[in-house]
Amino acid sequence: MSSDLPTGPEEANEALFSRFSINQQTIKQWSLPELVDGCAKAGVRGVGLWRAPVQEYGVAAAARLVRDAGLTVTSLCRGGFFTALDSKDRADALVDNRAAIEEAAALGTETLVLVSGGLPAGSRDLHGARERVADALGELAPYAADAGVRLALEPLHPMYAADRCVVSTLAQALALAERFPAEQVGVVVDTYHLWWDDTIGSQIGRAGAGGRIAAFQLADWVTPLPAGVLLGRGQLGDGAVNLRWFREQVDAAGYRGPVEVEIFNPELWERPGAEVLAEVAERFARHVMHAR
Amino acid sequence: MSSDLPTGPEEANEALFSRFSINQQTIKQWSLPELVDGCAKAGVRGVGLWRAPVQEYGVAAAARLVRDAGLTVTSLCRGGFFTALDSKDRADALVDNRAAIEEAAALGTETLVLVSGGLPAGSRDLHGARERVADALGELAPYAADAGVRLALEPLHPMYAADRCVVSTLAQALALAERFPAEQVGVVVDTYHLWWDDTIGSQIGRAGAGGRIAAFQLADWVTPLPAGVLLGRGQLGDGAVNLRWFREQVDAAGYRGPVEVEIFNPELWERPGAEVLAEVAERFARHVMHAR
Repeated sequence: MSSDLPTGPEEANEALFSRFSINQQTIKQWSLPELVDGCAKAGVRGVGLWRAPVQEYGVAAAARLVRDAGLTVTSLCRGGFFTALDSKDRADALVDNRAAIEEAAALGTETLVLVSGGLPAGSRDLHGARERVADALGELAPYAADAGVRLALEPLHPMYAADRCVVSTLAQALALAERFPAEQVGVVVDTYHLWWDDTIGSQIGRAGAGGRIAAFQLADWVTPLPAGVLLGRGQLGDGAVNLRWFREQVDAAGYRGPVEVEIFNPELWERPGAEVLAEVAERFARHVMHAR
Repeated sequence: MSSDLPTGPEEANEALFSRFSINQQTIKQWSLPELVDGCAKAGVRGVGLWRAPVQEYGVAAAARLVRDAGLTVTSLCRGGFFTALDSKDRADALVDNRAAIEEAAALGTETLVLVSGGLPAGSRDLHGARERVADALGELAPYAADAGVRLALEPLHPMYAADRCVVSTLAQALALAERFPAEQVGVVVDTYHLWWDDTIGSQIGRAGAGGRIAAFQLADWVTPLPAGVLLGRGQLGDGAVNLRWFREQVDAAGYRGPVEVEIFNPELWERPGAEVLAEVAERFARHVMHAR
């Protein structure tokens, strides 16, 4: 056993899972009460939630359910989609994002994940779309700060640049976030989106030095990608990503927050939720946390 | 009509298409003789070829066929796949790449396109794989130079990093190429792979200043991506890429070579080749060459 791990099995487990969080989408076959119950049974204390299932259950009721179970909501997904050209659409997006901020506050999480949005239909102006993201952050960041919520800008893999998110690298996300105070706008470091980038180590250092790492999310990269490339994320350890290296980089950059596992994979959704959660936890211990 | 275009229709056509080249894969329903014949009928003078159909026809016979038709071979695709860990596999790759260099020389093209290769099965070491690409370039570059062929390292979209090409950005490709003389190792600028990158303008400038642009290839980015993400390239003008901006950047960087259209798209392959070639030429004039 490595010398930097606690020696007793219970302490080891405690240290391993103190930062672990399961994102709701990873086990989306579970209803919100099933998720809360399943986490309690498995000793999992952090959950990342999504707006649609929370709204369906009722925001106040969801907040109560999670709080009563002693769970921490590590993030809420997602606001964003700021890139419309039409002014009515942009105003609607701001209204929706203010609602997302209020939902995050009600759930007791500081972290609202933002997916910026893709190119408007027929547009080829990536730069303009990125500036509209900055404009929206300027509108929303003070409002979020007043609610005790930080906007967490998530760079998505470049394969989503046209239709989902014009912010494709951590460097880009940081350049946008750094226009605002660190306590108002941070970034999400997600291994699935960023693993291929040869500058990612130095960009994680930059993010950490600026106090900008608002969330750290994990999924593995597996091929072949499915049509639409949305639901092909891999279980931890099944793919190409050096997950432990990422966790060490984020730790070395000073991040001490939750480590959230967010996998979109229909194969996981077909299995019993408790079995998936146990597998994720085992993979997390083996591929993310344990020293080599 | 814009003042920087010739005024007569024939001269305009001449100027528009003097650098145009059609990559064989764009119209792969055509055999090599059909391609040569179709290009002659359409007034197209440049073709990018692939090794498999050339080998099938016979390298010497293909070289003669193309030369007799007055066509220029603008590039040969492809060498590469340098990332194996097994020494026997790596030695085999070098043998195969020397053959590719000889085929390029026989066809009279200076440009051999290299797709570097992905991660070996089970490996998560992107850095190591990239260094093995550098090692192979070191082995092959002098051999290629002796044959009058330049190695053209192609960065592929990050969605191919695991299974096809560990070189994902133009900056990375340039950092590798710059270890060698510019006349031995250049880079490919392909809009499909690089369009999302917010640093691409400055990297094209860097590539041009160093005399490193060995090829300029065009395809558009359309969504949704198909399963496997290999055959989803869009016809020029159908997607998100500002093709004219790219051509202007490459021109401004001092590149004066061929502009090759390389689209992998099964819908194009189902149509008559001459119809596809005419459509590509019309799109090229409209979306790539004409001033705004």
